[in-house]
Amino acid sequence: MAMSPSRAAPLDDLMQSLRVRVNRALETFLPEADIQPTRLHAAMRYAVLDGGKRVRAILVYTAAQALGHDDDGLDFPACAVELIHAYSLVHDDLPVMDDDELRRGKPSCHRAFDEATALLAGDALQSLAFQILTNAPEASAREMVRILSVASGSRGMAGGQAIDLAAVGKTLNLPELENMHIHKTGALIRASVRLGALSAPEVESDVVRRLDHYGKCIGLAFQIRDDILDVEGDSEVLGKRRGADQARLKPTYPALMGLSAAKQMAEELHEEALETLHPLGDAANPLRWLSEFVVTRAS
Amino acid sequence: MAMSPSRAAPLDDLMQSLRVRVNRALETFLPEADIQPTRLHAAMRYAVLDGGKRVRAILVYTAAQALGHDDDGLDFPACAVELIHAYSLVHDDLPVMDDDELRRGKPSCHRAFDEATALLAGDALQSLAFQILTNAPEASAREMVRILSVASGSRGMAGGQAIDLAAVGKTLNLPELENMHIHKTGALIRASVRLGALSAPEVESDVVRRLDHYGKCIGLAFQIRDDILDVEGDSEVLGKRRGADQARLKPTYPALMGLSAAKQMAEELHEEALETLHPLGDAANPLRWLSEFVVTRAS
Repeated sequence: MAMSPSRAAPLDDLMQSLRVRVNRALETFLPEADIQPTRLHAAMRYAVLDGGKRVRAILVYTAAQALGHDDDGLDFPACAVELIHAYSLVHDDLPVMDDDELRRGKPSCHRAFDEATALLAGDALQSLAFQILTNAPEASAREMVRILSVASGSRGMAGGQAIDLAAVGKTLNLPELENMHIHKTGALIRASVRLGALSAPEVESDVVRRLDHYGKCIGLAFQIRDDILDVEGDSEVLGKRRGADQARLKPTYPALMGLSAAKQMAEELHEEALETLHPLGDAANPLRWLSEFVVTRAS
Repeated sequence: MAMSPSRAAPLDDLMQSLRVRVNRALETFLPEADIQPTRLHAAMRYAVLDGGKRVRAILVYTAAQALGHDDDGLDFPACAVELIHAYSLVHDDLPVMDDDELRRGKPSCHRAFDEATALLAGDALQSLAFQILTNAPEASAREMVRILSVASGSRGMAGGQAIDLAAVGKTLNLPELENMHIHKTGALIRASVRLGALSAPEVESDVVRRLDHYGKCIGLAFQIRDDILDVEGDSEVLGKRRGADQARLKPTYPALMGLSAAKQMAEELHEEALETLHPLGDAANPLRWLSEFVVTRAS
């Protein structure tokens, strides 16, 4: 399942331009490293800037664009989801969690700084994410905070990490594994699509439901691809150590169902995502390409 | 400077009734411990319930009441500030930070559970605080999220903890020490008063400014009293180990200026808080009593 050249080229360009856009906004929102407390601000910038595929931010932009909407206000939710994602990586890499030394091809935050600073940097990045959302119009800011806080919390991303912790060394069945990933990775990806859709004014509820289902499909597909890359990815391209999940005896899709069945499942979720977007017009093409990207990416 | 009986009695009753009120609301907002992921939810409840003076929540209620306002909606900001405070204690007690074994008279969260669970519980408590604020009316929810996120973040509470980390073993001068405490403890206490004031409709800006200055004074006084209690408090009453700051060579007011001058400074801040409230009527009496409580409390 290689990405056809006719699709890869426009998606590459689009992703690159949206990456530039969100990076520029993040650069503005993050306090400068010469503002006190300087070490904390330096760690926050280190954890967020110069790296990352920005898939979540790109989903915010492209979901809104699929509904014919685009303005500078999209930068707020786009940056907020990236800050939540970055904080989760900083905490997840800590020795008490996954103890990862490498992230986005650089030493992880606690390696570059220290554990206490990394802990506080993660905490402050979460606060900053919600602070940035308050720049959104009054009519949507409250709902955006609700969506992002639920997706981040104990019944979203943090909950998924807790399920992950409890699962190490255990045998999960497929529904249990899926439940873990729907929370750990899926919740924030799905929230990204919802935040983008929420930015567009007056959207039909059927369209919102379709976009939400799209987000759910690619959120799960994203994690399955992560598991596949942990088996057959290239550490250098990944920017982190391949085989880390296997080494930790973490339950993964390839471990549970075999590599080929895991690939098949990711492909089916991709097909389901496309099916869901069917009634939407050409404006949703970037979302279609992104779904393909999610299940074919090398990092 | 003993609290006179004429004041102590009504304040005790008031604080107790507001504690019951916020505890009941917290009980409702925190996910039950039998909801998945159960260990995470149990840790969140452990960190928040059964303990704490609830000074921040009480400030939310009494600031609103001083402006003649009271309704069930106050529970949202009252719970949110307590959840932020609880999360900061959980993370602050971790071995990479202060490594405290005892909190509110019980084993600290990572001792009762484990470090990874405590980390995630703190993270999820922060998310939950912002989620709860989205129950406030649309007109005030956005501003509440803004106030609380700024007070929690890198230029508020988390920033104060970073300054604290950097200060261990160093000699700070008075402005540096004050800067640390204004962030570490002061920001959230001040935010509590502001959130209470924000809940009341149509308040004159002069009154808001006065309440804000009151919050700033008692926020700093609160920390000075903490430092004093670290020297002369009773570990059993404190619910944590006395002398912990001294043992860690943390800069404190008594260490910098002597015990008697520190007490004098706390008293002066109390006087300034009363002065600021002068134009407000009897409805502000609980705020006056609270200021006295802050500088005379034994735990």
